[in-house]
Amino acid sequence: MKKLDKLVVCGVGLIGGSVALALRRAGLVNRIVGVGRRPEPLAQAKSLGIIDEVSTDWASALEGAELVLLAMPVGQMDAVAASLAAHLAPGTLVTDAGSTKRDVIEAIYRHLGAHLGTVVPAHPIAGAEKSGPAAARADLYQGRKVVVTPLPENAPEAVARVREVWSACGALIHEMSPQEHDRVFAAVSHLPHLLAFGLVHDLAGRANAEQLFSYAASGFRDFTRVAGSHPEMWRDICLANRHSLQAELDAYLAELAYLRALLVAGDGPALEQVFSEASQARTAWADKAFPAPPSGE
Amino acid sequence: MKKLDKLVVCGVGLIGGSVALALRRAGLVNRIVGVGRRPEPLAQAKSLGIIDEVSTDWASALEGAELVLLAMPVGQMDAVAASLAAHLAPGTLVTDAGSTKRDVIEAIYRHLGAHLGTVVPAHPIAGAEKSGPAAARADLYQGRKVVVTPLPENAPEAVARVREVWSACGALIHEMSPQEHDRVFAAVSHLPHLLAFGLVHDLAGRANAEQLFSYAASGFRDFTRVAGSHPEMWRDICLANRHSLQAELDAYLAELAYLRALLVAGDGPALEQVFSEASQARTAWADKAFPAPPSGE
Repeated sequence: MKKLDKLVVCGVGLIGGSVALALRRAGLVNRIVGVGRRPEPLAQAKSLGIIDEVSTDWASALEGAELVLLAMPVGQMDAVAASLAAHLAPGTLVTDAGSTKRDVIEAIYRHLGAHLGTVVPAHPIAGAEKSGPAAARADLYQGRKVVVTPLPENAPEAVARVREVWSACGALIHEMSPQEHDRVFAAVSHLPHLLAFGLVHDLAGRANAEQLFSYAASGFRDFTRVAGSHPEMWRDICLANRHSLQAELDAYLAELAYLRALLVAGDGPALEQVFSEASQARTAWADKAFPAPPSGE
Repeated sequence: MKKLDKLVVCGVGLIGGSVALALRRAGLVNRIVGVGRRPEPLAQAKSLGIIDEVSTDWASALEGAELVLLAMPVGQMDAVAASLAAHLAPGTLVTDAGSTKRDVIEAIYRHLGAHLGTVVPAHPIAGAEKSGPAAARADLYQGRKVVVTPLPENAPEAVARVREVWSACGALIHEMSPQEHDRVFAAVSHLPHLLAFGLVHDLAGRANAEQLFSYAASGFRDFTRVAGSHPEMWRDICLANRHSLQAELDAYLAELAYLRALLVAGDGPALEQVFSEASQARTAWADKAFPAPPSGE
C-alpha cells in the first residue's frame, strides 16, 4: 500500500499502539502522533517508540493528518467525535477500533455528518490479557479478523484505503452490517466477558474467598482469563451493546434454567447429552480455529 | 518412599495413567495392572507402557496388590466398590482420584465396610483438555494439589502411605473434610465447567452457529476450554455433587440477575465497580497461582 504520511492515534494502549507498531514495522507510515485523555500513557507510548510525538490539541494533531485511528474505549467516542469534528479536514480518513459498532456509528452521525464519506468504522478481533501501551505488539493483528462495517455514505476509495491499512497490519478483512456485528459479538465476546467478571466477583465477595481461590486450578484460570480485562473498556462495551447483550444473557439464563432443572431431577442422560454436544462443538471449533492447540495443563 | 510391589489402576485414562507413569518414572513400582470396563483403553495403556498387564477379573487383579487406585469416572464408583469388595485382601490399600468426595465415601461405606482402615479417599487437582491413556503424562501432578479426605476409621499408617504415594507423583498434599471439599470444588471447578458447557451448547444450537463460531476468538477459546472435557466424567461429577453445585449455581444466578439489572438500568458506575473488583481479584490470584503467566494472545 501507499505509505501514510501522518497517522493520528487517539488512545495509544494495546489496540491503538499495536496498529502504530505494525505500520511502523512495515515501513508504511512517516509520522505517528498520539492523542489521549491522560499524559502518562502518551509519554509511555512515546518512550516505547510507538508514537513519534504527543499532541495535546486536536487542531495541531489533525493538521495534515492522512488517517485518524480512534482506539480509545467506546464510551469516549461521543466526546472524541465532538471534539475533533471542528478540526477534521475534508479528505482525512477516520477509522476506529471499537468493539461495538451501532453506538460508534450513532456518534459519527451526531458529530461527523460533514465527513461521512471518509469515516469508516471497523473492529479488530484481537485482544490480550493486558492493556496499555506496554502490551502493544506489532504482530497483534497478524492473521486476526478485522470486521469493517462501512456506512452507506462511505466513499468506496475510503473503504478500500481503510481495508488496506488493516490488511497491512496483518489482518483478514470481513464486512458486516453494524447490527449483525453487534449481535454476533454480544454472543461470542461480550457475554463471556460478563459471565467471567460475574463469577470472579461472586467468589471474591465470599467470606472464604481466599480458600476458594487457593483451590482454583487451570480450568478456572482459563475460564476467568477475560475477567482480567480492562474494567472501563468493558463497562463501555456492555453499555454500548446492552440490548444485544441482554438478549444473549437472557438466552443463556434460559440455558442455565434448563441445566438447573436437569440437576434437580438428577437427569444423567440429558446432562450427558448437553455436555457431549458442547464438547463436540467446542472441539470441532477449536481444532479448526486454533490448529496448533494451546498446550494442555 | 518404599517401592510398591503391585499397583492396580482401575481406569487407565488421563488421571490413572498419569499416576502409573509418575510412579514408574520414579522407579517406585514393580508391577502395574490395569482394570477397566472397556478393552480398548486398557490395550492402549499397555502398548504405551503405562501398565504392564491387563486384568479382566478383580480376583486376579487384587491378588497380592499393595495399592488399588480407583480412577474411573465417579459414577462407576458404586459398582466398582461392590465388585472389588469380595476380593480385597486385608491390608491392601485403596485410594481414589474422584473429583467429588461425599458420593465416593457413601459408596465406600456401602460396600467396603470391612476395609475402612485402609481405604483413603483423595482428589488430585489436575486435569487437561484431553482425556484417555494417550493424554497421560508422568508430570501431570508435579506441583499440583492433591486433597486427601481421610475417613475417621482410616488407620494413620494407611493415610500416611497414601499421602506418600501422591507426594511421589510430585503433588502437594492437603487435607479437608469431604463436605468442605465438595463445597469448594463446586464453586471453583464444577460450576465453571457447567457454565462453559452451557454456553457452547446454547450457541451450537443456533441457526447461525457457524457464523458465531467463526468470529469467536481467543477469549472465547479460553472461556470454553473446559467445555471440551469428558462428558461422562462431568455428568457424574455434576450428579454426585449436585446439591453443592445447585447452591453455587443459584448464587451465580443471583449475580447474573444483578448484572442484568445494571445493564437494563444502564448503570455504568456499578458495572465498572463489579468489573474492577473482579479484574483485581483475578489478577491478584493469577499472579500468585501461576507466577509464570500464560502468554497473551
